[in-house]
Amino acid sequence: MLSKKVSKKLLPVAILSSLVVGSSVGVFGNEVEAKPGNNKAKIHNVIFLIGDGMGTSYTSAYRYLKDDPSTLYTENTAFDDDLIGMQETYSWDEEESITDSAAAATSMATGIKTYNNAIAVDMEKNEAKTALEQAKEEGKSTGLVATSQVNHATPASFGAHDESRHNYNDIADDYFDEKVDGVHKVDVILGGGTSYFDREDRNLTEEFKEDGFSYVDSREEMVNDDNEQVLGLFAPKGMDKMIDRTEDVPSLAEMTSSALDRLNKNKDGFFLMVEGSQIDWAGHDNDVVSAMSDMEDFEQAYQEAIEFAKKDKHTLVITTADHSTGGMAMGRDGEYKWDPEPIKAAKRTPDFMAAKISDGDDVEETLAKYIDLELTNEEVQSVKDAATNGSTTEIDNAIERIFDIRSGTGWTTGGHTGEDVIVYGYGPQSEKFAGLHDNHEIGQKVMEVLSDNEKSPKKAHKK
Amino acid sequence: MLSKKVSKKLLPVAILSSLVVGSSVGVFGNEVEAKPGNNKAKIHNVIFLIGDGMGTSYTSAYRYLKDDPSTLYTENTAFDDDLIGMQETYSWDEEESITDSAAAATSMATGIKTYNNAIAVDMEKNEAKTALEQAKEEGKSTGLVATSQVNHATPASFGAHDESRHNYNDIADDYFDEKVDGVHKVDVILGGGTSYFDREDRNLTEEFKEDGFSYVDSREEMVNDDNEQVLGLFAPKGMDKMIDRTEDVPSLAEMTSSALDRLNKNKDGFFLMVEGSQIDWAGHDNDVVSAMSDMEDFEQAYQEAIEFAKKDKHTLVITTADHSTGGMAMGRDGEYKWDPEPIKAAKRTPDFMAAKISDGDDVEETLAKYIDLELTNEEVQSVKDAATNGSTTEIDNAIERIFDIRSGTGWTTGGHTGEDVIVYGYGPQSEKFAGLHDNHEIGQKVMEVLSDNEKSPKKAHKK
Repeated sequence: MLSKKVSKKLLPVAILSSLVVGSSVGVFGNEVEAKPGNNKAKIHNVIFLIGDGMGTSYTSAYRYLKDDPSTLYTENTAFDDDLIGMQETYSWDEEESITDSAAAATSMATGIKTYNNAIAVDMEKNEAKTALEQAKEEGKSTGLVATSQVNHATPASFGAHDESRHNYNDIADDYFDEKVDGVHKVDVILGGGTSYFDREDRNLTEEFKEDGFSYVDSREEMVNDDNEQVLGLFAPKGMDKMIDRTEDVPSLAEMTSSALDRLNKNKDGFFLMVEGSQIDWAGHDNDVVSAMSDMEDFEQAYQEAIEFAKKDKHTLVITTADHSTGGMAMGRDGEYKWDPEPIKAAKRTPDFMAAKISDGDDVEETLAKYIDLELTNEEVQSVKDAATNGSTTEIDNAIERIFDIRSGTGWTTGGHTGEDVIVYGYGPQSEKFAGLHDNHEIGQKVMEVLSDNEKSPKKAHKK
Repeated sequence: MLSKKVSKKLLPVAILSSLVVGSSVGVFGNEVEAKPGNNKAKIHNVIFLIGDGMGTSYTSAYRYLKDDPSTLYTENTAFDDDLIGMQETYSWDEEESITDSAAAATSMATGIKTYNNAIAVDMEKNEAKTALEQAKEEGKSTGLVATSQVNHATPASFGAHDESRHNYNDIADDYFDEKVDGVHKVDVILGGGTSYFDREDRNLTEEFKEDGFSYVDSREEMVNDDNEQVLGLFAPKGMDKMIDRTEDVPSLAEMTSSALDRLNKNKDGFFLMVEGSQIDWAGHDNDVVSAMSDMEDFEQAYQEAIEFAKKDKHTLVITTADHSTGGMAMGRDGEYKWDPEPIKAAKRTPDFMAAKISDGDDVEETLAKYIDLELTNEEVQSVKDAATNGSTTEIDNAIERIFDIRSGTGWTTGGHTGEDVIVYGYGPQSEKFAGLHDNHEIGQKVMEVLSDNEKSPKKAHKK
């Protein structure tokens, strides 16, 4: 959102008008697959992508971050062409009307509303069938991919049942123990979480292997394995943010691609949930650098999904968020400017830098090494002060503040916020998700699409 | 966004499912008029409604404010059924990449991008033809309705041309002096702004009357007059916020209705721009009470427009915002709660109360009279402290803070923010506005719809 170059701005209107065409997009952009007349198109596969915490300020800010300032108009992100609607996110919690990730994911996974903390259970803690379980009943392959631990709230709400998201071990156990028609219900599990699967009391990695799953724990192992069933865990709990990752660790796009290769071997199709988990964690931390890092990770995974769906022609791709986080705004303190350049100058997250400094690395050297900007003395001093007196969190906050002030990013909370979030849709029957829906309606529609297709593949839909 | 009543939450799933149907909406909700196959429907009229500053947090918060907590799911606002897309809002300003209302309105009025402050002029300050002017060229009637002074940035960008929005007198003069094919280009002008039209150097109210316009300055006069051409000014500058208005002053809905009655007398159709001007002013002030007051004013005007369009069947209604304001978020300070009840307890705006206190009224009595809540001693004391030591603004801020903290509303700036805003569409050809567009594309599309229809009313559109 830097000012566009003036020279191009002064082109005559006629030329501007012709340039406009390229940036004109809309719900009818994927008309071939999505228009109402194609409602009857057969769906084999559903890919459900969730950007945790990905409110409208995140998707907008990310577009301006990726914008080429030498062109007249902003370039669309991969998501933008597929914008079809929005989603309400409130939960039915007695105490907290703003949803957590568990209640929201449960709504999207099962089609019901519930209380915060609930993992695919209703208000009375009864288990609710999930879209993933339904797909498995119908003989499809299933997958869960996330950059958090794979037993974190969002993936858990598709693959487990628990009265509390905090029962991480029980949720991991569910992935192995809960079967559908006698078979494991999740075929592909990729993300973080070794510490929950390889425990003192139980080693689920061994148990999965005994039942024919591959177990991989590095990018290379994942890429070199082609078993239809796989457990891949790449961190003790959550994986690193994209810009902090080493080569050993796959990106969300690589995990998505690996999942699609495996799941696509099933002629009856598949259901895959992919979560950009840590957009939300960045929001909780009020860390715009990490937020944009993991928006990029999520966009690349989205591109894998769309590329697959484009070729396949029978894949519905639904993408949304569970809520927004942090009250992030493009604009603070009265300034009419949001500038992504300082954010792009970060080579690592503030968390990464703060940990280095906390471990004794020199403040000035660390900032110079990982931030490609001339910092002011005051900025450096603010981090030095935090390092002298404060905790790693305070060092982290001081570094984040540099990016906030320079970019013009504001925040209102360390928690979630209640605004509607965007829904993107691609492929046959995506128009069912157009307009405004409650999050449980999105879940119901995913289940409808899955069941309708399987139970009566040749039945024409009533209009 | 209070927690929904538990009793109803525990209804069996089958009943829940049937209840869901009523709240299921979407872009195809107004299918009869809007579906692609009806592209050829003849358009006579365009109503363009702009909620100034109405970002997604405003439209979401307003839904929760109007929600009936005794029902299971939130009720849709009048806007919600017509959600079809979103809009990018950045301007081409050299200094300020976040738009002001002038640049954004110019884009929506003329189809070009420009610099902040520009009133229907391009980057080189050349005049750009507006949708209103185009409509007038085609023999349509035209109207501008706003709750700000009617020569404020948004209406001005449709009815005037100026290198700066701050030249209020010149803009008012334009409304009278600039003619299209020898006739006044704006037939209906309703809003605030007496001080700019009845000046020492020029009395535009008299000049308009001499040319056959009615001049009205009260609700009653407006309602009792049915001249096709009218200038109605109901305040020296901006009108009061909805909840502060007296009976002498019309609501935005009443002004809209009055405008529609007059404009609809022209068999060649009309173009009407209606602005909910002060949603933005509330945002600048970080005043959630005023924001919700004027969201309601705007929704009621929207309902007038939709009611007209429903009967008429040849009216396109496009509704959007120019940008968001204040970085308003439903959520602050880590709390997972946004509660509209304290906002609903306000009988007047904080500005109104602060002015009373500043004029010497007792703090405790004033708060008790205008806020239907048991305030804590600390809350009352915070306003007393502001009244003892501070300006009217500080008293205002202290009162606003009570509502912010109680409702859980956060803010990041006194200025605008850069996130995308929602687009609502109703009526024939509304699907052209579906998906994501840049604000200048919205302007181009409005002009396309206006010109295409008039120049070749019987020509089938190419698909």
